Amino acid sequence: MAGSTFGEAFRVTNAGESHGAGLIAIVDGCPAGIELDETLIQHDLDRRRPGQNEYTTQRQEADTVEILSGVYQGETTGTPIGLLIHNTDQRSKDYQDITEAYRPSHADYTYDAKYGRFDPRGGGRSSARITAVTVAAGAIAKQIITPMRPIAYVKSIKDIEADIPKDVNESLIEQSPIRCPDLLASKRMQAVIRDARKNRDSVGGIVECVMNDVRVGLGEPVFDKLDALLAYAMLGIPATKGFEIGSGFDGTREFGSEHNDSFTITDRVTTITNKSGGVQGGISNGMPVLFRVAFKPTATIGQTQQTVTREGNETTIAPTGRHDPCVVPRAVPIVEALTACVLADLKLRDRASRI
Amino acid sequence: MAGSTFGEAFRVTNAGESHGAGLIAIVDGCPAGIELDETLIQHDLDRRRPGQNEYTTQRQEADTVEILSGVYQGETTGTPIGLLIHNTDQRSKDYQDITEAYRPSHADYTYDAKYGRFDPRGGGRSSARITAVTVAAGAIAKQIITPMRPIAYVKSIKDIEADIPKDVNESLIEQSPIRCPDLLASKRMQAVIRDARKNRDSVGGIVECVMNDVRVGLGEPVFDKLDALLAYAMLGIPATKGFEIGSGFDGTREFGSEHNDSFTITDRVTTITNKSGGVQGGISNGMPVLFRVAFKPTATIGQTQQTVTREGNETTIAPTGRHDPCVVPRAVPIVEALTACVLADLKLRDRASRI
Amino acid sequence: MAGSTFGEAFRVTNAGESHGAGLIAIVDGCPAGIELDETLIQHDLDRRRPGQNEYTTQRQEADTVEILSGVYQGETTGTPIGLLIHNTDQRSKDYQDITEAYRPSHADYTYDAKYGRFDPRGGGRSSARITAVTVAAGAIAKQIITPMRPIAYVKSIKDIEADIPKDVNESLIEQSPIRCPDLLASKRMQAVIRDARKNRDSVGGIVECVMNDVRVGLGEPVFDKLDALLAYAMLGIPATKGFEIGSGFDGTREFGSEHNDSFTITDRVTTITNKSGGVQGGISNGMPVLFRVAFKPTATIGQTQQTVTREGNETTIAPTGRHDPCVVPRAVPIVEALTACVLADLKLRDRASRI
Amino acid sequence: MAGSTFGEAFRVTNAGESHGAGLIAIVDGCPAGIELDETLIQHDLDRRRPGQNEYTTQRQEADTVEILSGVYQGETTGTPIGLLIHNTDQRSKDYQDITEAYRPSHADYTYDAKYGRFDPRGGGRSSARITAVTVAAGAIAKQIITPMRPIAYVKSIKDIEADIPKDVNESLIEQSPIRCPDLLASKRMQAVIRDARKNRDSVGGIVECVMNDVRVGLGEPVFDKLDALLAYAMLGIPATKGFEIGSGFDGTREFGSEHNDSFTITDRVTTITNKSGGVQGGISNGMPVLFRVAFKPTATIGQTQQTVTREGNETTIAPTGRHDPCVVPRAVPIVEALTACVLADLKLRDRASRI
Repeated sequence: MAGSTFGEAFRVTNAGESHGAGLIAIVDGCPAGIELDETLIQHDLDRRRPGQNEYTTQRQEADTVEILSGVYQGETTGTPIGLLIHNTDQRSKDYQDITEAYRPSHADYTYDAKYGRFDPRGGGRSSARITAVTVAAGAIAKQIITPMRPIAYVKSIKDIEADIPKDVNESLIEQSPIRCPDLLASKRMQAVIRDARKNRDSVGGIVECVMNDVRVGLGEPVFDKLDALLAYAMLGIPATKGFEIGSGFDGTREFGSEHNDSFTITDRVTTITNKSGGVQGGISNGMPVLFRVAFKPTATIGQTQQTVTREGNETTIAPTGRHDPCVVPRAVPIVEALTACVLADLKLRDRASRI
Repeated sequence: MAGSTFGEAFRVTNAGESHGAGLIAIVDGCPAGIELDETLIQHDLDRRRPGQNEYTTQRQEADTVEILSGVYQGETTGTPIGLLIHNTDQRSKDYQDITEAYRPSHADYTYDAKYGRFDPRGGGRSSARITAVTVAAGAIAKQIITPMRPIAYVKSIKDIEADIPKDVNESLIEQSPIRCPDLLASKRMQAVIRDARKNRDSVGGIVECVMNDVRVGLGEPVFDKLDALLAYAMLGIPATKGFEIGSGFDGTREFGSEHNDSFTITDRVTTITNKSGGVQGGISNGMPVLFRVAFKPTATIGQTQQTVTREGNETTIAPTGRHDPCVVPRAVPIVEALTACVLADLKLRDRASRI
Repeated sequence: MAGSTFGEAFRVTNAGESHGAGLIAIVDGCPAGIELDETLIQHDLDRRRPGQNEYTTQRQEADTVEILSGVYQGETTGTPIGLLIHNTDQRSKDYQDITEAYRPSHADYTYDAKYGRFDPRGGGRSSARITAVTVAAGAIAKQIITPMRPIAYVKSIKDIEADIPKDVNESLIEQSPIRCPDLLASKRMQAVIRDARKNRDSVGGIVECVMNDVRVGLGEPVFDKLDALLAYAMLGIPATKGFEIGSGFDGTREFGSEHNDSFTITDRVTTITNKSGGVQGGISNGMPVLFRVAFKPTATIGQTQQTVTREGNETTIAPTGRHDPCVVPRAVPIVEALTACVLADLKLRDRASRI
Repeated sequence: MAGSTFGEAFRVTNAGESHGAGLIAIVDGCPAGIELDETLIQHDLDRRRPGQNEYTTQRQEADTVEILSGVYQGETTGTPIGLLIHNTDQRSKDYQDITEAYRPSHADYTYDAKYGRFDPRGGGRSSARITAVTVAAGAIAKQIITPMRPIAYVKSIKDIEADIPKDVNESLIEQSPIRCPDLLASKRMQAVIRDARKNRDSVGGIVECVMNDVRVGLGEPVFDKLDALLAYAMLGIPATKGFEIGSGFDGTREFGSEHNDSFTITDRVTTITNKSGGVQGGISNGMPVLFRVAFKPTATIGQTQQTVTREGNETTIAPTGRHDPCVVPRAVPIVEALTACVLADLKLRDRASRI
């Protein structure tokens, strides 16, 4: 009820704060018998971790995950998988001047209002640092849902939009330091991010995610629809402001006769168009699942801003903690991880749909 | 796990299909001691019910709700509230020709793939008819969350966008037969819908919802954030393709220095702008909660379309069942209902946040 | 969170009170494709319903169940099954004198303390009448778990203990009007119950339940063990005071060398003894699941008893509503129903245990 | 759904195995603002840990708990509390000879049947070692529910039953190395346990738990009754075979006129007797909650026993791993911990019972 658990059949629960001793997650419901490739877990953690290059925060975290349980002799045992990541590069003193003033568009004020306190050290529980263990859990989920595989990438940064090639894949995406598979657009986006950093400002953007080879029949009516759970998962990521699937908001401007996806037969039932984004009635129809997630510009900026103190006095603040000038590139593996978690959950839940 | 339950502390579970005997919902977790105004429940049901005017389906349903339990001598007792709505105007024969072919962009195919069968009579469980009991549950939720009150309205139909007055309210909204408080835009939207109906076509649009007087502190990190639960709730409504809160997708094009909501003191802590849409770190900050939901054009259209049969043969179909040429006006009370359910749930959950 | 839902994969939610308009239940998670035999549902309801004979309350309820949804052309569709039972023989005036005084060992006082009110009409939500819809749900569960089949019966009434034949079955059990398959003991028990009724008193007893052909591997460590969920289910039945499985409390007096169940091979792995009651480490081992449930004497008795009023004054009370002099015989189908619900839930959950 | 989570509002999830790297638990839903006394957590862990004296297993574990999150400057923050206990004294080689044969009355066979594998090293996930983190979580729960405080103790060992003084308290209980507050009976019980150990045998017994100062109104009808959740919690502890509350199984032999608890007024509403064990209609009535839990004799004994191998051949086994000749004394703090967890959960859930 307190919100730290995600999923029903594949269930991830986590704890930890930005500047505490470490982060843990418990993955309950991972079926027995998976040959778990731990390098894939570390691979995704490396994609998410800070300090990768000039486009990310300079906080240095190895983000090495320790698997405490649930795996024996290389295979999952069916018992819960315990994951532990130690925090190593906390610089709590960076945050000493903000213990009394709320940073604009951060969670300081709302946490204080809710809990009667807030943890100023890097945002405490509201920090995107928490997503490290989620990425680890997602890397396990990815190994449950194969051959399904979510591929996320940067679709836009500020007003620069990428042209995504049809055969987009991780290798192409990772050629760009900001994970935009349109390498020309990537260059322009990089410049925008560097400029923002120089100006002690920040920018946002859109992550798109596509998933092929999706099994037909995943999603639970009427509330736990595939698209509803994806929306829930994505809006739980820090800094997100929107979600759309298939035709999304643009689809509202079409006629039904344009928008409907006619069925046809290839080797199986497919649709000629995919305005539905792979989901009909909340259930996957086997077409690629395609959705977009909006990320606002990073709230932490070095510029002086107006705010108030806990005591209710107006003041100004110019935060000095390390931060990303743009969270969108590092959000890519997070979007993939949560997508994998949703799919793993629904795949296992679907096992109960027929006698 | 099968998806028919919404919420944790304020928990709504429903059953029923478009053309079955009726719909039921169980509202568990409604606190004792609320003087429940049943006319408000019927009021919202009347706003949602079919057959209201030329802009809605001509199916006729009184949608009278019977309260079976949980209320004694006009007050809630703390025990679950049972709600029953009988279906009265089923015309199952309208659907006889579609028992063997999948209607494009409907859930026929995905249900068949998932369950090995589908209910052709009006979409069965995938029908928006199910939302009738959700609206009834939402009308109960509204009475829990006062003085908070979600106000939804039509923001756009196809490419016509409304200009929403600051003091938008239900009375103004209901002056428009399609629930658009910009009465000039409403006229143009009505024409668009009438034209679509004439052409046996359909149109979509955007519903916006605003909620004032929101209590600070509602939302549960890290997964059950207020915005995440709203997104989940909205994408569970049939025909939705997107959700955005506050600045939404447009916000991705701003600099952080433009986007951040500076704090100030009025009679309490407020923000000068509200790009956050009333939610920071997943928790309400007391500013108006403001979000938008994208609805695709109705999938059921009278035009002939290409599709396939259950046996895997290509064919054409021209559905004849009654339907709305545009679902957006009737979606307005549904959006409000689910918003109220989310808020009621989070309000009760928040009671456990401090010792 | 408010307690009206049972199970995770096979999930039953109910609403209703003893003297309200009716009872409803929603069975969510019933797999598609079951040819549902509705006569079996009514059969179990008939075994539970009041007014069967001189050993039960004289309230008359047909307890006819109406299936509102989830079944189409005789088969389950995978969507939630809505169940409705109308209350028909409410005599609320019988309870007028107890609106102000708490009946001893009833839930009047605790409901009043918790909710600030209580429903004096037959116990409201605390009444065993609520179990009617649970029995209906259990009859559906029974059709999911075949060939597993729980068989419950009266093991003792007051200090008379039955000698249960090895091949106990429902037909033998139903030969006894109080459902005790030891027909000699049954006669003595009947006399005890008749005497209690005559003396405006009541008696209790023990229900035993055995289940053969149990699939190996059902139960979820570490909290949702098969025996833990059975205990939870049984203690949720009104008037229960205890649960034991296999050797139970007597087993605490044995040495480990006596108590351990040695494994052997017949056509499969079995154990020579069954002190474990079919459950080891919380998971079924294929041996018969065998447990007992203690039922206290009915709290409602016609004798004058000391109590207090809502205002805090001492008074006496001699309840006059209809009631059972012994609830144990009617508890038999309730125990079976909840056992079936637990097993159906665990059977579906087990589908996710291996990749 | 996989069973590693306990509770709804106060929710404990754990992971870990007997011989893995360590155990973790996440306590989600602990309200903010509790001055958490960590010494109380360690105190309870010390009471549960192995190697205390000659009556327990000789495995040596310091069982030092590390709090990873959720506490800042000595107070709970409202965010999840991460708990970590490292395993230090694993002797996996002790178990090499049992990788192929199932130990009688252990979970080896059922885990193998369920998951296609089992962890022979000390029972893996089925080991009582897992309860270490539960005890830590329970020590947090105890600090939520004050002044309520569960006091558990050994009521019987084999056929020796203790006479419990009215003012039983932890200090008295801890005077006995086996936690029996009847010090004369304790001596006899100790002899029984020593004899069992000498004979490479084991014994069982009964733990009783009493809780005073219980708040009226805790428990959620109809399924999550206080007594139902206690039964569920207790039967989840390894080696338990039964649960009874108040009059329990003996109460089935009384007349209603003897068994009913008449109400009276002292400084508040109380009952003259307490056959109900403090719970009526599933809700606490303010009288002491009193229940008993049956523990079977330890399954691990040094004697040679008949069993079968994974390949299906009959064989014999004489386990050599370290173990307790009687688990009952160490079960005492486990019973208390889970009782505290149930009460903390219900106390927080009750906050939503009235508007």
